[in-house]
Parts: sequence; C-alpha cells; structure tokens
Amino acid sequence: MRPVTVNADLGESYGIHTFGNDEALVELIDAANIACGYHAGDPHAMRQAVRACVRAGVKPGAHPGLPDPVGFGRRSMRLTADEVRDLALYQVGALAAFAEAEGGRLSHIKPHGALYAMLAEDGDLMHALCDVAVHYGLPVYGLAGSRHEEVALERDVGFVSELYVDLDYRDDGSLVVGGKTRRRTPADVTRRLESAFADGTVQTVTGKYIDVRFTSICVHSDTPNAVEIARSVVAALGANPPDAT
Amino acid sequence: MRPVTVNADLGESYGIHTFGNDEALVELIDAANIACGYHAGDPHAMRQAVRACVRAGVKPGAHPGLPDPVGFGRRSMRLTADEVRDLALYQVGALAAFAEAEGGRLSHIKPHGALYAMLAEDGDLMHALCDVAVHYGLPVYGLAGSRHEEVALERDVGFVSELYVDLDYRDDGSLVVGGKTRRRTPADVTRRLESAFADGTVQTVTGKYIDVRFTSICVHSDTPNAVEIARSVVAALGANPPDAT
Amino acid sequence: MRPVTVNADLGESYGIHTFGNDEALVELIDAANIACGYHAGDPHAMRQAVRACVRAGVKPGAHPGLPDPVGFGRRSMRLTADEVRDLALYQVGALAAFAEAEGGRLSHIKPHGALYAMLAEDGDLMHALCDVAVHYGLPVYGLAGSRHEEVALERDVGFVSELYVDLDYRDDGSLVVGGKTRRRTPADVTRRLESAFADGTVQTVTGKYIDVRFTSICVHSDTPNAVEIARSVVAALGANPPDAT
Amino acid sequence: MRPVTVNADLGESYGIHTFGNDEALVELIDAANIACGYHAGDPHAMRQAVRACVRAGVKPGAHPGLPDPVGFGRRSMRLTADEVRDLALYQVGALAAFAEAEGGRLSHIKPHGALYAMLAEDGDLMHALCDVAVHYGLPVYGLAGSRHEEVALERDVGFVSELYVDLDYRDDGSLVVGGKTRRRTPADVTRRLESAFADGTVQTVTGKYIDVRFTSICVHSDTPNAVEIARSVVAALGANPPDAT
Repeated sequence: MRPVTVNADLGESYGIHTFGNDEALVELIDAANIACGYHAGDPHAMRQAVRACVRAGVKPGAHPGLPDPVGFGRRSMRLTADEVRDLALYQVGALAAFAEAEGGRLSHIKPHGALYAMLAEDGDLMHALCDVAVHYGLPVYGLAGSRHEEVALERDVGFVSELYVDLDYRDDGSLVVGGKTRRRTPADVTRRLESAFADGTVQTVTGKYIDVRFTSICVHSDTPNAVEIARSVVAALGANPPDAT
Repeated sequence: MRPVTVNADLGESYGIHTFGNDEALVELIDAANIACGYHAGDPHAMRQAVRACVRAGVKPGAHPGLPDPVGFGRRSMRLTADEVRDLALYQVGALAAFAEAEGGRLSHIKPHGALYAMLAEDGDLMHALCDVAVHYGLPVYGLAGSRHEEVALERDVGFVSELYVDLDYRDDGSLVVGGKTRRRTPADVTRRLESAFADGTVQTVTGKYIDVRFTSICVHSDTPNAVEIARSVVAALGANPPDAT
Repeated sequence: MRPVTVNADLGESYGIHTFGNDEALVELIDAANIACGYHAGDPHAMRQAVRACVRAGVKPGAHPGLPDPVGFGRRSMRLTADEVRDLALYQVGALAAFAEAEGGRLSHIKPHGALYAMLAEDGDLMHALCDVAVHYGLPVYGLAGSRHEEVALERDVGFVSELYVDLDYRDDGSLVVGGKTRRRTPADVTRRLESAFADGTVQTVTGKYIDVRFTSICVHSDTPNAVEIARSVVAALGANPPDAT
Repeated sequence: MRPVTVNADLGESYGIHTFGNDEALVELIDAANIACGYHAGDPHAMRQAVRACVRAGVKPGAHPGLPDPVGFGRRSMRLTADEVRDLALYQVGALAAFAEAEGGRLSHIKPHGALYAMLAEDGDLMHALCDVAVHYGLPVYGLAGSRHEEVALERDVGFVSELYVDLDYRDDGSLVVGGKTRRRTPADVTRRLESAFADGTVQTVTGKYIDVRFTSICVHSDTPNAVEIARSVVAALGANPPDAT
C-alpha cells in the first residue's frame, strides 16, 4: 500500500446511464467509494463495481448519499440525525451484501456529495454516521479538521483524511459541492499536488493557501477526463511519494 | 410455536403515509415480512418494524418487491433473472443491516406482490431469489405446488408454504394480485379457514375447490380491518389448530 | 364566495396510501391545493382530486413540492432559482393538463411544505415561482409579509394571503414545517381563529402574539381529524365572518 | 419538410447523467421525442431539449414512458388503460408546459420504449393514449400495421408511421426493446434503408424480409454513435429520397 492512497467514486451509473470511467479507474486506485442506490447506483451497478474491486484488489467502500438521483446527491437537504443514521445504514447494508456475495468485504464508509459536506459541519449528523461505522467496525473517510475527524476520533472510529484534486476549497477548508464536477487539467492536478506534498497546503477559491492533512487523494468519476486525472495523481505519487501525515 | 404460524406484511409505510396496523399486528403474528424500500418501506419504517419484531419476539423477514412505489409493487414487470437477483440482494441486505442493528437476525425471505406472483410461475426468476436465500442461509415463503416450492426444494432452501385469507385464488392455484387488498369480513376468513383446515381446500374465484397445503397463514396490512382479520385467524388457530401439512 | 375562504391540500395520496380525507374535505372548502407527483400525488390521485374539485365547485390549484416523497416535501433542499422554476413548471403543467381534461381550469399555485418555507425567505426562488405564475396568469398563495407577498406584488402576480390553523408560528411569522402535521383539537382551532378574527393576531411558539393578515385559511389533510378541523373553521367563519384584510 | 422525416429521442439525460448527443442530433432531425421525467428526463433536461428544438426549428413532441428510471422505461409493466391514460397525460402535460414556456408548441406524442411496445399490441392501452392525443389534438407516432395505427385511425388521431434503423424487428413486425440500444454501424443503417426504400421491406432477426410502411425514421440517442447514425440516415434521405408511403 502506498503511504498516500488514491480513492475514487465508482458505481455511479444509473440504469443505462454511465460515466464510463470505472473500468480504467479501478486499475489505478487503492480504494473505491461505491454508490448505493440513493444518489446513483442501481443494484446491477453496485454488483459490477464490487466485482471489479474484488478482481482488481481494490478496497470496496460504501458511498451512501442523499435520496436525490436527479440532484446526484449534491443538493443539501435538512435531515435529522435519525434520518441520516437510517439512510446510511440502509445503503451501507445493501452494499455490504454485494461485497460479501462477490467474495469481498466492505472496507470503509464515505458519505457522498452534499451529505459529506453536511456531516463535515454538523457533529450530530456525523455521530449518526459513526453509529453505522461502529456497528460495522469500519473506518470513515472525510476532511481533516472538520466534524468528520473530530467525531470519528471521539467515537474511536478509524479515520482516513482526504485531499481533493478536482473540487475547489473555500478559505475555511470546506469543499464546494454541487452539480457536475468541473473539468480539471492534469496541470491543475499537478499544481495542487505539488503544493499539498511540498507545503501541506491547498490554494482556495480566493487565492489564499490553507493547511491540508491527508492520507488519501480522491478522484471523482463524473468528469470526462476522470481517468486522466487519476493517472496524474498516481504519477505524482510515484514520482514524489509524500510522507503520510 | 404454533404448528401453523401467522405471518403479516409490516413496515409498509412510505414517509408519513402509513396503514396504521403494525403496532397491533405485531402482537398477533409469528413472523413479519418487512418492506425493504422498493415497493414501500423507507429506512425509518424498516427500523421501526424490525424493532417492533425484536421486542415482540416476532421473526423479522425481508419482503423485497418491485421498484414501483406508486404501484405498491403489485404491477408485474418483465425482469431478467439477473435483475431479480440484484434487486433482491439489495433489499435483503438493507433489511439484514437493520435486523442486526436492532439486535435481531433476519429470519426469512418472502418476495412481495407481483414479484411473488412472477416467481411462482418462472423458475429462472425463482432461482435468482434462491441465490440470495442460499447466500444468507434463509428459508423462503411461497406457494406450495408452484415454482416457489419446486425451486426451493431443488436448491435445498427451506420452504414455508402459505395460505392466504385476504386474496382470491384462481383455479390453477395462483393468487389474484393487484391494487389495494380487498376488504374481507371475519366471516370470509372463517369460511376459508374452515375449508382449509377441514379438507385442505380453498374456494377459487370460479367457485371451484382446489387443494392447498400450508404451514403459515398470511395477513396483509393494507386493509382497514387487517387487525380484525389477523384476530380471526389467531382465534381459528386457537380453537381448531390444524396439523401442519 | 366567503370574504375569507378555506383552502386545503388534496390529492396527497401515493399509490394505495391515502389520508382518506379528500372526499369530505372537498365539500367544505373553497379552493384545493393538489399535489403534483413530487412530494405526493401520483397521476391517478391528481385526476381524482381535480375531478372531485370540478364536481364540488372547488377551485383546483397546483401544489408543487420538492422531489422527496419519503420526506413528503417537508425537508428543505438547497435549490437554485432555475431548479425551482423548472420543477414548478413541470408540476404545474402536469396538473393543468388534468384540470383541463376534467373540464376545469387551474385556479392558483401554492408551493408545498419546505418549498413554501424556502420561498417565503428567498426572493430569488420566489421570483422563479412567479415566472411560472406569470406564464399561466395565475395567483399564488402565501404568507403576508414574507417574500411570497413582496415578490408577488413586484411581479404583479395575484396574491392570496393565508392563515394556518394546524401549524405553529415562530415569532418572525414563519411556520414550523416538518414531518407529519401535529393533531390539533377543535378548541385549538377556535382559539386561533378568535384571536385572528378579533385582533388580527396569532400566538407563536413562544407565547407571544404577532400580527397576521389573511384572506384564506389553510387546513392540511394529513391529520387524522382533518375533516373535524375543517368543519371547525367553516363553522367559525359562518358564525363570525371576518372582514377580509 | 422532407417527404420522409427523421425523428430522434432527446432530453433523455437524468441529472448530471447525459448521453451527450442532443446538441448535434437536433441539427439533423425534423422532430424530437422529448423524455418527460418518468423513464428519463428531469425538468431541466426537458427545458433544454425544448429550447434546442425551438431554436433549431425542430418539432418538439412528448415521449411519455414507464415510471422506471433504472430500467429506462424498457421493461414492460402490466398497466391498466386508466394507468396508461393518467401517466401519459401527466407527462404530456408537463412537456406541453415547457414547450409553451419556451415559445414553442407541442407537435406530437410518441410513447417510449416498453410502453410503445405494449401499446402496439394492446388496443385498450392505445385507446388510453389516444384519449390524451385527442385532448391535445396531436398526432401520434407508431408502427404501421400495429394497434398504434389501427386505433389512431379509429379515433381520427393523426398517425406518423416509423422505421427503426437501430432496433431489431421480429417476424411479426414488432420491435425488440430492452436494455441499452445496441451499436450499429453506418453500413447497417445503409443496408436497412436501401431495403426499406427500394422494396419497402426490413430484414428481421430470423433473416426474413417483412413489409414496412413509414413516413418517419427514428434514431435513438443512447448509442455512442447516435450522431453518426443520424448522419447516415440524413445522407441516405438526401441521396435517394423515397416517396412517403
């Protein structure tokens, strides 16, 4: 395992609609966050993604999202902690079934899209997700310095901190989530990784640099050049492996 | 355990819409078939139903259905065996998660509505469900003499044969599934049970009597008098316990 | 027409799930807000509700909501003005088709649940709804003193101000929206109407009295005693007709 | 207008998932069948598709489908005539609203996918669709020689008969509908068109040739090379314009 890993969102097709990047991405990454049917990912797509992970030796994680397929789970919803706990357990349970049926084992939980952003800010909601993580004995992925990390530590839940190469950061360290992921060039990615590896910083939407800690780098699969982005990340990691922080 | 058990569909609410019978039904039955989010049953409803079963000592089963909430899973769809296997695994996996989170254990699988009827006729589709049952090591509920029983036996899957007191039978032993379950009177129920217990027969829509074998009696929860029907069944079982066949 | 009218949400069933109050409510009210398929209300329910309105001489209005049937459109979502405009036009267009097919004519637009609350606070979103209202030449229902009224006036869209008898008010005049509507007694309703008619005030959740202007009184249909509540309102209006404000 | 027109399914994206062919297709075709939110096509996609049609001078038609986004409306469902009438009216009404809001006018109705196939075989269901067509005074697209044509003629509804270049025909003239549309080469298309133009026949899956009548040629948008297929059709029509039959 690389000291810094690469994770990507997989299984995000919906019926015959697919982003078409899963086959190539699964060869490049260490861990996959697999959509569980709410924001995307029908049962067939879930089985295909899990199977591809098991074959490629990639860790299959659950990527529960908001019940909003048209918004791809990227439109914030006001939910209670009970609602978050229940919709997370539903989706994680479904994906765990596919993981086991395909001879694998669920490896982690990562909330998707707007749910990810909601949990980064709201400790009660993050506790609800951690209830599910504790039940399964699984680590969660999230943002260092946010409620993700704070609550995971408090609950003694394993925590994997992430760097994003295809989303914008705000000055407070939060991510701009919404709509379709904007296309980035390999140069954009390289620039972000250089700053992240060399100084432990990322540039925000205002041009400022803020500190960032991470042990995994996330690549989205809904950009046309997702595979190219993932290759840039893997190349940068190979050329200049950072110390995991 | 009674020699002939009583099972009912629970957890069939959808958001704030509920049939309102679960609380009373769970006190009367031996096993529950809990909706899993496709034809009905959101995550909160699933948790509530499982919790009620665990408290009442009722066996919690998964009741996977077709992805058609407006049709309540009672409109037949042309699905492949792969589609049936995947949508069943998705739903059963989700319910298994709630059962375990609430300190219970999934006890059985019963396909819902039109899916039940489709599997009674199509061995390939029933094999797909049995793949899921084998994976979990769980018995399935179904109609004696149909593909349900035939394939379950072939696959060495436990089989619980059912009698219906609130659905009509056709001359070929199949059930009339569709729309809202029609209201029956306690007298209707008593009449069906008398014939079933005394002679092992049920009267069909044409007036004919056909043979029926069963070890469990099913009561639906979407009729206004579902609780009254369940009480009639329990009373009949108490007064005149049949030999399980 | 009474100087102060009574409106109710109708057509909020979802498949075989129904609140069961429409038949009685339509005999008591002046205008109906008919669910359009997003938060509730499948096409059959829409046709039934429109037909009942046309028969009873009740004005059929469109009641567009958020795409969240499990949350019954009562969980706030972060939407853009374009998204609000498009989902409102979709739903209003669909209901207009049923109104015309049943020999009626769409009479007004009233946003539902969390969408109603979102538009009360956000002028851009309310402008998006008014784009649809202008297109159809229809008035909108809303809260006096909120963005509902402010934007409607600015856009020269007809405005019907409402009083709620089964929701709580906050001190700022906003409504507490969420989950299932809480049961109220006829005495609760009478108390609110007395204060509203005599002094033009309602008591808030903190016990304070705030001013309220209205020309229509709304009754929800998802409470078990919705019909009783509506009868209380109609009785109060008959006994003590207020001057419309 | 060409004596034989070209129509394509547009607006079939679902949230951020899109086939990506609409922009180029709209420049090539005479009429568009726009998805209405059930099998695909959210409100934003509907507005975009209608707007593109209005700009390009393409006739915008409604393309109502089954309520099955994961199956893309290509899995047959057992529906009653009332259900077909209501779900068609809902979707056509919604699209008509977008057409008018964008300065256009709905031009026709074409049932989608499995619904198209169901209506080709079942006159009662086709009558239900014709109720909607009569209400709007619009023609319907369908298969010559099927219930589509028979019922449309009986109901005095305009009828546009179609040839398919990217679906297989069975010996009885019905189409093989299901899953993702299979990729065809321009040579496949040319071969079909030559036989259709020269002899009025198409080759079926068994190799047999059967008669076909048509005044419009349909191209699907869910194949990777949909634009190439459409170009082949347009080129063939330009080189060798058939007499409309």
